[in-house]
Amino acid sequence: MSSLDFLFRPKTVALIGASHDERKLGGVILKNLLKFKGRLYPVNPKYDSLMGIKSYPSVDEVPEFIDLSLIMRPAEEIPALLKSHKGKARCAVVMSSGFSETGRGDIQDEIKKIGIETGVRILGPNCMGVYNPGERLDTLLLPAEKIGRPKKGNVGVVTQSGAILHCFFGIMKASNIGISKAATYGNAVDIDECDLYEYFSRDRRTDVVISYIESVGDGRRFLEAAKGLSGEKTLLILKAGKGSSGEAAAYSHTGRLAGRYEVFTSLLKQFGIKEVRDFDEMADAVKALSYQRPSKGNRVLIITNGGGSGVLAADECMRQGLEAPPLPPEKTARLKETFPPFYAIHNPLDLTAQVEDGDYLTALSELKDDFDGFVVIALAGVPGITEGLSAMIADFKKKTDRPIVFHTTCGCGEGKLISAFERSGIPVYPSPERAVRAMKALLGER
Amino acid sequence: MSSLDFLFRPKTVALIGASHDERKLGGVILKNLLKFKGRLYPVNPKYDSLMGIKSYPSVDEVPEFIDLSLIMRPAEEIPALLKSHKGKARCAVVMSSGFSETGRGDIQDEIKKIGIETGVRILGPNCMGVYNPGERLDTLLLPAEKIGRPKKGNVGVVTQSGAILHCFFGIMKASNIGISKAATYGNAVDIDECDLYEYFSRDRRTDVVISYIESVGDGRRFLEAAKGLSGEKTLLILKAGKGSSGEAAAYSHTGRLAGRYEVFTSLLKQFGIKEVRDFDEMADAVKALSYQRPSKGNRVLIITNGGGSGVLAADECMRQGLEAPPLPPEKTARLKETFPPFYAIHNPLDLTAQVEDGDYLTALSELKDDFDGFVVIALAGVPGITEGLSAMIADFKKKTDRPIVFHTTCGCGEGKLISAFERSGIPVYPSPERAVRAMKALLGER
Repeated sequence: MSSLDFLFRPKTVALIGASHDERKLGGVILKNLLKFKGRLYPVNPKYDSLMGIKSYPSVDEVPEFIDLSLIMRPAEEIPALLKSHKGKARCAVVMSSGFSETGRGDIQDEIKKIGIETGVRILGPNCMGVYNPGERLDTLLLPAEKIGRPKKGNVGVVTQSGAILHCFFGIMKASNIGISKAATYGNAVDIDECDLYEYFSRDRRTDVVISYIESVGDGRRFLEAAKGLSGEKTLLILKAGKGSSGEAAAYSHTGRLAGRYEVFTSLLKQFGIKEVRDFDEMADAVKALSYQRPSKGNRVLIITNGGGSGVLAADECMRQGLEAPPLPPEKTARLKETFPPFYAIHNPLDLTAQVEDGDYLTALSELKDDFDGFVVIALAGVPGITEGLSAMIADFKKKTDRPIVFHTTCGCGEGKLISAFERSGIPVYPSPERAVRAMKALLGER
Repeated sequence: MSSLDFLFRPKTVALIGASHDERKLGGVILKNLLKFKGRLYPVNPKYDSLMGIKSYPSVDEVPEFIDLSLIMRPAEEIPALLKSHKGKARCAVVMSSGFSETGRGDIQDEIKKIGIETGVRILGPNCMGVYNPGERLDTLLLPAEKIGRPKKGNVGVVTQSGAILHCFFGIMKASNIGISKAATYGNAVDIDECDLYEYFSRDRRTDVVISYIESVGDGRRFLEAAKGLSGEKTLLILKAGKGSSGEAAAYSHTGRLAGRYEVFTSLLKQFGIKEVRDFDEMADAVKALSYQRPSKGNRVLIITNGGGSGVLAADECMRQGLEAPPLPPEKTARLKETFPPFYAIHNPLDLTAQVEDGDYLTALSELKDDFDGFVVIALAGVPGITEGLSAMIADFKKKTDRPIVFHTTCGCGEGKLISAFERSGIPVYPSPERAVRAMKALLGER
């Protein structure tokens, strides 16, 4: 398998179907490409220049070899266009739709054949291409004014659906998660999730890969690529189409498709590949894993200032197969001496509504070597909780490599507290259960 | 069972342990009570007046019969204080902690006995009392400056834990959910969730009751009260302490406590009482049920402009036991004539990234009688989606009594679109799966 560097780090990019009109797809893409570090060649026979950049009438006229050609033209034109790339381009991203997803499997088969004949690698069709902030390469159909890009970071994105890339960008921005590179591969006539997993397994800027999959071509190859990536980084898979899509609904009573999904999910488990249950679990897990390194163990300490919140966290630990074991007796004795008599020195450790910031640090410092991970809960409406808490917990974090997640209420003006925690690399969740599920993601060994 | 009107609509309220110091609990409560519509009597032997209100040295000196007495004094003082309420007060809320939860079951037993002997009804101990915005009655230990109260509305809250009330307030404010009345009952020596369910089943301002429970006293009575309330309103129960709290963790391998929880949850199902799985499911369900009336059926139409999002929604329908059946053939034919050829006229109905606002209305109007509920998905980064979409969907909502929920991305500046939807009574969720689970809550018949 050759490297996909030409896809993520091209020196030369052409855009076939470029437009000067930002309301058109060829205009959206061109605008996003204006910041590209390398050399950009818009192709449109009607114009000499587009958005201030010299334009070319055809691929042939482009004055150098094209590493990456982006094609945004109607499906019917694609076969001829691709043929014109022979010897002229390394890789073509077919962004247009109108192939097997709308009943034109014939054109799709044709372009697959042309890819093999010409040696031009193909991403797509029916995809949004790639995003690599390191090269300022942005081929996406998403207008950057409307859909801001996440900051640079350590999360790679591999998604079959462009819509889900849009949604991933949303949660990454909302949760201050950084991106390394993203690729969407749509109908996957050539380059597919396996190629991309192999690429990301060697990408030094990426620690975590999130992947949305609807269908898999060669199951054996998929499992090997996913296992390979999972050995190097953390890979999180969200599998959609579990047997309930429009068409599948008709079959669902037979259990046939649902059965297939069960096979898929049990194979993932068997190969040690992590699957998330739904979009929200993906969002919560990737936030934790982009902020902190995964770790081992399953013994969790819950520290709270709200009894009920601690109990909900303990319930979720049980559901997630995490343990919340009692404190060591000598530590219990010592904390009982330190804390007021109405604090409940158990696990959950309940510091009650009369807590002060420093109590968290006291408890964590005392128990830092007795647990594998720390779920810290501070309902922020209580007088003794201040923004100073974040600095204390951040300080503690420097002294341990074990994961820490934080839950506080939302809707009561906790914005600053939450930001302060997240700036310190401690992910914040709006419920005890979500915080515990994030801990579970962190405590799964790779 | 007598009405709990004295608890929620007292004419006279005393606060034993009132303070002028807002940093003290007796000061927090007094400050919250300053807006109370009825007559307020602070009790504190050290002062003649507190926060500008005449204060009394003891319960005896209060110049009239007390409907509701709030007691915020150390646990040891409570028995004597309660005795002094005989013939003088109808109901006492013991807010202090320091009873069975900290090993002083002896004092708790004593106050239970005193309640029976004196005829004074007791709420608590170890609770935050009640909130009734209609009477501007706010006995909570939560400083209103730090924890704003939700707006007035149709949701009643019954919670054993004050911390969870705090969290409920957070989500109600964040989701623009209105509150009718709230009660916290802590250790429940007398008034418990059953009494409160009975009260709420007759409360005309309440349509939905959310209830957080850790323990239940008399199982049979609980099931009857919960069933009774479920027959009149929508009751949602969040049960904590499923066998994993600190103490319980030690027993968890025996499966004894987990087994008990399984009995509880299967009894709820058998009695037609709704249980939510976790805090987040409660938050999502109460939002939907406070905005819209529950309805019948299980056939859901999914309309989307993002293919992947539609598939995730369809997957969740399957998991939730909802159907996403195909469109009627004649409607499919008509929509195929109306819409561009690349729209996928199935269920999910995929209007693609080239959608315009009006397409949603076209589809919904055509299919309004063919489905029991509508999950509408609009990823907002697409050029054709504008804030005008909310007015269109709101217009459609006026023409149907079937539930509609909405999903859009977050983190990309959709704030205005979301607000516009929610002002129209259409709840918005940040993932397809959460939108579908909210639809499930709406489609459960009462």
